[in-house]
Amino acid sequence: MHGSEFTFPVNVRYMEVDAQGVVFNAWYLTYFDDAMTAFLLAGGLPYHTMLDAGFDVQLVRSEIDYKAGVRWQDPILITVSCSHTGRTSFTLDFEVRRGPEVDAEVCTLGRTVYVVISTDGSGKREIPPILHAALGADPEPG
Amino acid sequence: MHGSEFTFPVNVRYMEVDAQGVVFNAWYLTYFDDAMTAFLLAGGLPYHTMLDAGFDVQLVRSEIDYKAGVRWQDPILITVSCSHTGRTSFTLDFEVRRGPEVDAEVCTLGRTVYVVISTDGSGKREIPPILHAALGADPEPG
Amino acid sequence: MHGSEFTFPVNVRYMEVDAQGVVFNAWYLTYFDDAMTAFLLAGGLPYHTMLDAGFDVQLVRSEIDYKAGVRWQDPILITVSCSHTGRTSFTLDFEVRRGPEVDAEVCTLGRTVYVVISTDGSGKREIPPILHAALGADPEPG
Amino acid sequence: MHGSEFTFPVNVRYMEVDAQGVVFNAWYLTYFDDAMTAFLLAGGLPYHTMLDAGFDVQLVRSEIDYKAGVRWQDPILITVSCSHTGRTSFTLDFEVRRGPEVDAEVCTLGRTVYVVISTDGSGKREIPPILHAALGADPEPG
Repeated sequence: MHGSEFTFPVNVRYMEVDAQGVVFNAWYLTYFDDAMTAFLLAGGLPYHTMLDAGFDVQLVRSEIDYKAGVRWQDPILITVSCSHTGRTSFTLDFEVRRGPEVDAEVCTLGRTVYVVISTDGSGKREIPPILHAALGADPEPG
Repeated sequence: MHGSEFTFPVNVRYMEVDAQGVVFNAWYLTYFDDAMTAFLLAGGLPYHTMLDAGFDVQLVRSEIDYKAGVRWQDPILITVSCSHTGRTSFTLDFEVRRGPEVDAEVCTLGRTVYVVISTDGSGKREIPPILHAALGADPEPG
Repeated sequence: MHGSEFTFPVNVRYMEVDAQGVVFNAWYLTYFDDAMTAFLLAGGLPYHTMLDAGFDVQLVRSEIDYKAGVRWQDPILITVSCSHTGRTSFTLDFEVRRGPEVDAEVCTLGRTVYVVISTDGSGKREIPPILHAALGADPEPG
Repeated sequence: MHGSEFTFPVNVRYMEVDAQGVVFNAWYLTYFDDAMTAFLLAGGLPYHTMLDAGFDVQLVRSEIDYKAGVRWQDPILITVSCSHTGRTSFTLDFEVRRGPEVDAEVCTLGRTVYVVISTDGSGKREIPPILHAALGADPEPG
């Protein structure tokens, strides 16, 4: 299980910056998707292990708050944490900071909600213990 | 001023579809950005007119709810409406439907919040009457 | 069979324009991919018909010459034509023009080479007559 | 000046993989753009130094040969080298390999041609010595 603080570095590409000179809004969802995979991996759950175990996660909601623009070559770090787990869903929170300093500016906040589904097509299922562990949450009793 | 219902067609590109066969989540923000510009244009406000009048709009928040996946070559239509105007900000609501029928499946819901800023760098400003009109809202009195 | 001149309109998105104010180079390959599908469709060959007939096309080479930058909201039209067919491969030529006029500026030239493959995994195969027809080339004798 | 072999690692994003399970062709140009910047930086020329010195580079031609598909999470490395310098232009060659081994499979080959332009709008100019040095080529005599 990873600690309470997981940080994911982002290489901002030149092509992600728009005519206003800042990263276009849609790219943050791309960053969050990458950061989610890395977060689960750091928690001991590679994506293929999840599939091999018969489940997958599906995005059902995204929220982004844009505080300050990010520019090309800014040294971006994204902190990921799990802020909620339900029976079949969980929520990740993302903080996009310019630089590694503890007091570095927070440029963007994100939140994504996922449901766990079976890979056999039978729909939603409860969060498996290995996913609970990877999220840094306590496994469901029983 | 456009009517209460504005609809924007989207040509889903092959490259927007991911390994799961559905449009990757980030592309919806790209669709919404395009749809916003078209919505204001249909309301009588081309983007360059906005800039010429000394103001611009800046995205401060996005929300997306994913209901059903969109596939390549699906005939997607996005309905845009202004659900709120404040003193310096406004909110647009987006409904992504598969097909033109009134009862076509709603695949995705979006909401974006913008603030109006001066192009002279002086920061936020009140919504100008031409923008109020384009949004389909009543112009501010006075 | 479509005529010798097939034209595909492109809606340049705001997010495709980079910090220099022109469409970033990679997006042209996205335009060409869309234009290829539309070209075959106009020639009587929808993509799903191709798959149903047991073959697919695979990109093996791309070339782009950048002549002039394309800007957001430029009324872009792409002319597509088949410049070569071999036994198992064919070549498409693309001309990106700013506007519908015959003498409109050519901003970008592209060329893509595809091989035809069987969908059963057996590799390359000869160009089927329905693809030859869609490309505007004479079907192979015999 | 960097040595004759410069290698740039790429983090393939999930969203870059298309419905066929391999990286969509356009993303390679994005990788090459990033790799070019890193190549010049490794050669002692940060992008901002180039601009500060009054010149910029402009892409005029791209070529890509696709040999084998790249998949999500493949450990991709791109080798960059300068294969030609002219008076006002230069050519970079890219080899995309799956893995760091010397005999790792070459998945994609790329070639891009740039011209050097003045940032004052006066057009093409000769390759400056600091760019020649960064490219690993001998500076022009005189």
